[in-house]
Amino acid sequence: VSAPEAKPLIALPMAMRWRDLDAFNHANNSTYLTYLEEARLQWMTQVDGWMNERHAPILAAVHVNYRRPLNWPADIIVELYCERIGNTSLTLAHRIVDASDLSALYSDGQSVMVWIDQDGKPVALPEAVRSACQ
Amino acid sequence: VSAPEAKPLIALPMAMRWRDLDAFNHANNSTYLTYLEEARLQWMTQVDGWMNERHAPILAAVHVNYRRPLNWPADIIVELYCERIGNTSLTLAHRIVDASDLSALYSDGQSVMVWIDQDGKPVALPEAVRSACQ
Amino acid sequence: VSAPEAKPLIALPMAMRWRDLDAFNHANNSTYLTYLEEARLQWMTQVDGWMNERHAPILAAVHVNYRRPLNWPADIIVELYCERIGNTSLTLAHRIVDASDLSALYSDGQSVMVWIDQDGKPVALPEAVRSACQ
Amino acid sequence: VSAPEAKPLIALPMAMRWRDLDAFNHANNSTYLTYLEEARLQWMTQVDGWMNERHAPILAAVHVNYRRPLNWPADIIVELYCERIGNTSLTLAHRIVDASDLSALYSDGQSVMVWIDQDGKPVALPEAVRSACQ
Repeated sequence: VSAPEAKPLIALPMAMRWRDLDAFNHANNSTYLTYLEEARLQWMTQVDGWMNERHAPILAAVHVNYRRPLNWPADIIVELYCERIGNTSLTLAHRIVDASDLSALYSDGQSVMVWIDQDGKPVALPEAVRSACQ
Repeated sequence: VSAPEAKPLIALPMAMRWRDLDAFNHANNSTYLTYLEEARLQWMTQVDGWMNERHAPILAAVHVNYRRPLNWPADIIVELYCERIGNTSLTLAHRIVDASDLSALYSDGQSVMVWIDQDGKPVALPEAVRSACQ
Repeated sequence: VSAPEAKPLIALPMAMRWRDLDAFNHANNSTYLTYLEEARLQWMTQVDGWMNERHAPILAAVHVNYRRPLNWPADIIVELYCERIGNTSLTLAHRIVDASDLSALYSDGQSVMVWIDQDGKPVALPEAVRSACQ
Repeated sequence: VSAPEAKPLIALPMAMRWRDLDAFNHANNSTYLTYLEEARLQWMTQVDGWMNERHAPILAAVHVNYRRPLNWPADIIVELYCERIGNTSLTLAHRIVDASDLSALYSDGQSVMVWIDQDGKPVALPEAVRSACQ
């Protein structure tokens, strides 16, 4: 489902920052999660009812493949795809590609989000989120 | 293999930092990768020959399960276990637990490292790394 | 007032993290602010009434001198000193030194905090904070 | 010299990231240094000879005034100005403003850079840097 022919939920252009580099002179592995988070939140905050006083999503798991090193400066695009709509969870696939060469894949993988109530118990995926993914 | 009865390669005590929190007031998801990286490097730099002018490890993939929110302040322990020794790669399992309650699991998962040469081609896992894992 | 003979409000031992490094292989300049923040919050949260529903501190200004590069791994000590008690503000001086050589100074400087109310207007420095500084 | 009528050396548009926020839901104080660093490096890497095998700049000191809280999402502009050209150092003033309201000032202040040789001793400011500032 994360194949390029699918339509992404969001394709967010991002500028790398020099501080994203680590002592090996590549974007640090943790930074990829920050890129994904930015795209995820920019997508979700456009969906009415993604979070309210009764429910909110938490990140339950993440899988990241590092496909090639990312050097500064670079303009990247973070693409999120709906991979699986569960009863209480949502699995988003991702691709991080180069803005000037969309076939240059820096990372792919998946993130699993679960919607919980105030007590931390899973609740049904909000209808608006479900709709936005279809 | 990541079960508590196995002996960890390293069990690194770490102090959370307030900056690890995000706007949800929990340790940010990316921070877990920084904790893992710290333990991984502190373990590896004790192994002679883990990196030299001919070979170096890169992180190829990571899987992180977020088991419970982590609040500040907290003292945690980052445990790494050898899960699989490959020809050119090493899979490390991890557990992040509370220093004051070792049964409180914040995260588990795996990281896959691949050793490469100067040209980026996979090379045999260094013998010293292989030994350190057995 | 930041001279070594003064008694610090707090002297917090901290472990550097590899992620604190940047592509120049030294602790990044922004990381020093994270070290200072950690010490400041660990000190303040011990002072009853430093923050409540009526007032909270904000950082108004910071001055940091970078005295020598900081390499990983390193154990450092972050010392905070009371430099000036104002009507609505508090100026803290800092020294960041090496835990294994207290005369090795990595950074010194000052941070100015102002206490504000819910509307963002400066309020009198909380009495408990004033006492804790004397 | 940092007044709006002066011509900035660079005026870099930047997108905030959600991860720039801390638990107070504002851009963390350390993040401002990352914004400044990005603008400084994007400016300097356009100046031939800013760094070579004989000399490189280090950040010697920074002063940051926090003028108003910065919330996510936001598009900001980081402006750097030449404030003082020394024999071995350069003082850059900065202004961080809102991209949609240039009169909304988030931060101002100064950064002092010193050029050093391989042994860490100050050297004359590179001629190209001096020219770029005039």
